[in-house]
Amino acid sequence: MTDVSPVLDRADQNLPSSLDNLFELLRIKSISTDPAFKAECRKAAEWLVAYLSSLGFTASVRDTPGHPMVVAHHDAASADAPHVLFYGHYDVQPVDPIELWESDPFAPAIKDMGNGRKILTGRGTSDDKGQLMTFVEAVRAYKEIKGALPVRITILFEGEEESGSPSLKPFLEANAAELKADFALVCDTGMWDGDTPAISAGLRGLVGEEVTINAADRDLHSGMFGGAAANPIHILTDILAGLHDETGRITLDGFYDGVEETPSNIKASWESLGMTTEKFLGEVGLSIPSGEKGRSVMELVWARPTAEVNGISGGYTGAGFKTVIAAKASAKVSFRLVGQQNPAAIRESFRAYVRSKVPADCSVEFHGHGASPAIQLSYDSPVLTKAKNALSNEWPKPAIVIGMGGSIPIVGDFQKMLGMESLLVGFGLADDRIHSPNEKYELRSYHKGIRSWIRILDALVA
Amino acid sequence: MTDVSPVLDRADQNLPSSLDNLFELLRIKSISTDPAFKAECRKAAEWLVAYLSSLGFTASVRDTPGHPMVVAHHDAASADAPHVLFYGHYDVQPVDPIELWESDPFAPAIKDMGNGRKILTGRGTSDDKGQLMTFVEAVRAYKEIKGALPVRITILFEGEEESGSPSLKPFLEANAAELKADFALVCDTGMWDGDTPAISAGLRGLVGEEVTINAADRDLHSGMFGGAAANPIHILTDILAGLHDETGRITLDGFYDGVEETPSNIKASWESLGMTTEKFLGEVGLSIPSGEKGRSVMELVWARPTAEVNGISGGYTGAGFKTVIAAKASAKVSFRLVGQQNPAAIRESFRAYVRSKVPADCSVEFHGHGASPAIQLSYDSPVLTKAKNALSNEWPKPAIVIGMGGSIPIVGDFQKMLGMESLLVGFGLADDRIHSPNEKYELRSYHKGIRSWIRILDALVA
Repeated sequence: MTDVSPVLDRADQNLPSSLDNLFELLRIKSISTDPAFKAECRKAAEWLVAYLSSLGFTASVRDTPGHPMVVAHHDAASADAPHVLFYGHYDVQPVDPIELWESDPFAPAIKDMGNGRKILTGRGTSDDKGQLMTFVEAVRAYKEIKGALPVRITILFEGEEESGSPSLKPFLEANAAELKADFALVCDTGMWDGDTPAISAGLRGLVGEEVTINAADRDLHSGMFGGAAANPIHILTDILAGLHDETGRITLDGFYDGVEETPSNIKASWESLGMTTEKFLGEVGLSIPSGEKGRSVMELVWARPTAEVNGISGGYTGAGFKTVIAAKASAKVSFRLVGQQNPAAIRESFRAYVRSKVPADCSVEFHGHGASPAIQLSYDSPVLTKAKNALSNEWPKPAIVIGMGGSIPIVGDFQKMLGMESLLVGFGLADDRIHSPNEKYELRSYHKGIRSWIRILDALVA
Repeated sequence: MTDVSPVLDRADQNLPSSLDNLFELLRIKSISTDPAFKAECRKAAEWLVAYLSSLGFTASVRDTPGHPMVVAHHDAASADAPHVLFYGHYDVQPVDPIELWESDPFAPAIKDMGNGRKILTGRGTSDDKGQLMTFVEAVRAYKEIKGALPVRITILFEGEEESGSPSLKPFLEANAAELKADFALVCDTGMWDGDTPAISAGLRGLVGEEVTINAADRDLHSGMFGGAAANPIHILTDILAGLHDETGRITLDGFYDGVEETPSNIKASWESLGMTTEKFLGEVGLSIPSGEKGRSVMELVWARPTAEVNGISGGYTGAGFKTVIAAKASAKVSFRLVGQQNPAAIRESFRAYVRSKVPADCSVEFHGHGASPAIQLSYDSPVLTKAKNALSNEWPKPAIVIGMGGSIPIVGDFQKMLGMESLLVGFGLADDRIHSPNEKYELRSYHKGIRSWIRILDALVA
């Protein structure tokens, strides 16, 4: 470690121009799911390449069958310094429903919320343009003051994170030698709260399944056939209701294979956070934990597997009433995985269970939507400890190591394909409304995020 | 009874012009559910009034808050002849999805199917314009030959049957004295098969309920909240799956109050029809009865109550996958009633059951969609016996008295408000595709339907 005060000061002085830079990127409508914005995605990639080049990176737009990647390299001051891969994504979610936005999602602005709090508004402010720019602006300040960087940096910015990352694995595979580093830094996560930075060490995996039950060869009139003909909605609801027992446990054969109890010291550290069921669920208007009985909400969302129905449809769902027995009904079901749960085995167990409940004169179709195992990073790695200390120096409260309810598939891909662990650090807050109208990022997240990365970069060579 | 051969002969000679008349009516796009076709509904009513007037009826278009009624009166040859009310409806279902029609739904045509079979194609051919015109054309032939009618006839044609008949009850109430007859003839049902006419004596009642479960105050990310926050789809599927036990019986408290076993002689007559489970369900691609165990399919659809989910929706149901926990989920549920089941009590029992299954931090909304008790007409009334004999004389096989799975609310209204029973006779077939693209009516149904009414009208004064 060196004295980073001058670099931190420079970051403070740079803030207005750092915001200008971010706003330029935010104005580009890089919605990856909608083909109409294909050119905008490329424009965002080109903007990043130009900006990284101006900072001394060797940067290029790299074509894929989908939206391009941005890859950039920068040497370290010392040849034996660690090599880190920084990952972020420049694509954003669609803005529908546009009428719920209080201002143009692609006209970013600073909004004064009073009491010294300011927020940055617009699509991508938090997910993930604002976050990735914290790192880039940290690098800029570092170079401006020190003239060199403490670690060797490779940057990978993806343009398809919001649309399932179809090109990512082939790209990692084809460019493994170029992208392989000692470890990865991923900035696409959040803080524990506005004062408490967090490093995510556990990420749940995910298996997505779409199941369709087919019964009669056409929609039937419930007066003519009701009580005699199979109703696929009944079959489906029966299947879905049977996924959990009365204690909230999932009933699939072998589902808990590979699930281990969280160590008690970890559970204790989570309990010390003071997050109660009331607080956690109260924020969304609920109060009663719905999952496995006898576990804290933190454990439920960070360390326990789940089965959730994400969507269901069948029959007549318009206004009024139609006495129809539908020909088919379908549901989208996702499983969050932990520990060593095997995604393929869980998919197969689910399908076998469903098949066992479908009458012989009906049929079932399955459609898989992704499968990723859970990730559990080592709680005691030196990199994690260094980053934790660096973050604790920047923020009012010490950094904590937490689990994460959701999946970040890139972390599994880095582990499996490039053999490197990831350090997940981000500055988003739970109320950032990512994927929703009126997305925002705290100005404080942006400013202290830049300062945090300066401290982490410095700490990594200690 | 008189010698009706000359009248039947006249109906045969009239057939080409009877078809011309029907086709004029079919060309009018009287879709009652769509306000865009309001003028077309009135046009159909006016066409009917003009045509009935030409046959000697005192006919008028009668305004309602919705689409108009047609009311027409004609005296009998003798002052002490019975007075019958004939009911039909001139409105039709929408034609969506239009792309599935093989020809313009409002350009009716005769299609030769080979082997002497011809069908009439177009919206309303079977439901209900073709059916109501069998009666009108029977009256025409009768008058042309006999110069008078054997019974006094009041005609009521409704224009809102396909949109829930909102104006019907107020109209019956306001015009009870004018519409009250000795009994009603309702032509909106079908035959047992192409050779076997049927009179419907039992009609199941209906209770419609829409239920919405509200959980969190917004859609949640299943990674962040899955396993802890209530999922309204889980609550709903649990509720719906619990409506039936393993034997197919409905579990609601008091649901079977008022349900009596069908007399064994009636069950025997149904069994003699030779309708097997395989035949009944085979027509729609199924083979296994889904309702209460140990009962024939005929008994299940004609004489047993049911609970069917007609529609369900919640969460993300578009293409691909979204790991969301929905804020709400809803279903439309209908109950078919028999015997003395009380619609209000069943609605209340359902709501109490649902409320008992909703967690304290979630809420439920109900929306009722109609309630009508079951109707059971006397199997031994003289009118029914006369009509049965008349039909048996016209068709290759004897007429049978059957139950009906669906509700025809008008029959309950006639009974309750005008104190008269209804005789339900119709000539539709199960494959007429009413409410669907490519609706048709057998030419034979139309032709022999006209002849059937001639025989019934004659038989009623025997």
